[in-house]
Amino acid sequence: MFSQCRTTALPMRMTNKWAAKIMVFLKDGRRRFSELQAPLQGVTPKVLAESLRAMERDGIITRTSYPGVPPRVEYELTDLGRSLLEPLNTWCDWAEEHLGELLGAREVYEQRSA
Amino acid sequence: MFSQCRTTALPMRMTNKWAAKIMVFLKDGRRRFSELQAPLQGVTPKVLAESLRAMERDGIITRTSYPGVPPRVEYELTDLGRSLLEPLNTWCDWAEEHLGELLGAREVYEQRSA
Repeated sequence: MFSQCRTTALPMRMTNKWAAKIMVFLKDGRRRFSELQAPLQGVTPKVLAESLRAMERDGIITRTSYPGVPPRVEYELTDLGRSLLEPLNTWCDWAEEHLGELLGAREVYEQRSA
Repeated sequence: MFSQCRTTALPMRMTNKWAAKIMVFLKDGRRRFSELQAPLQGVTPKVLAESLRAMERDGIITRTSYPGVPPRVEYELTDLGRSLLEPLNTWCDWAEEHLGELLGAREVYEQRSA
């Protein structure tokens, strides 16, 4: 359902590039850092950590650290984060349905301008 | 209804800074350039023209030029543009309801990190 939301061609998007995908992976429950990194192909640990920190800062996810060696760290959507799933989903549904039209319009426009 | 969508503090936004506001002004019918520029306080003619061109390119609005001296130019939402009003509105409703929580979470986070 979020597959069309990755492209930069959209007229609207999450300001944090990875946030939409992270939210999808957290939607069914808490996840460890490594459980997020594996499916998010192409993200470096540094960028993933920064994205998670930005989302924690905004109150969208919580970060819980459990003692141990190494400490276990888990991320989970907050109620605020869950409330964001609906507008994100509405938006992704739009992209799914209409992105082709938008890209088609661009192509026509470019050809006309050339 | 779009009043909360102006802030850059949002986790999601239109990639074209003025697009949301332009869409609101076009929602009730076609408008001339000057009719858009007046209520969009703070936009320069150059930036407004660029925003409108980007939206035309994406098939969100049409630009119609009528002969005359000077030519009359009118902008209007397309069906694709109208279809974008719903996700935009869902998103703006979220911001209206939850932006305070998000900003509050940020403040707490900053204080804890300081």
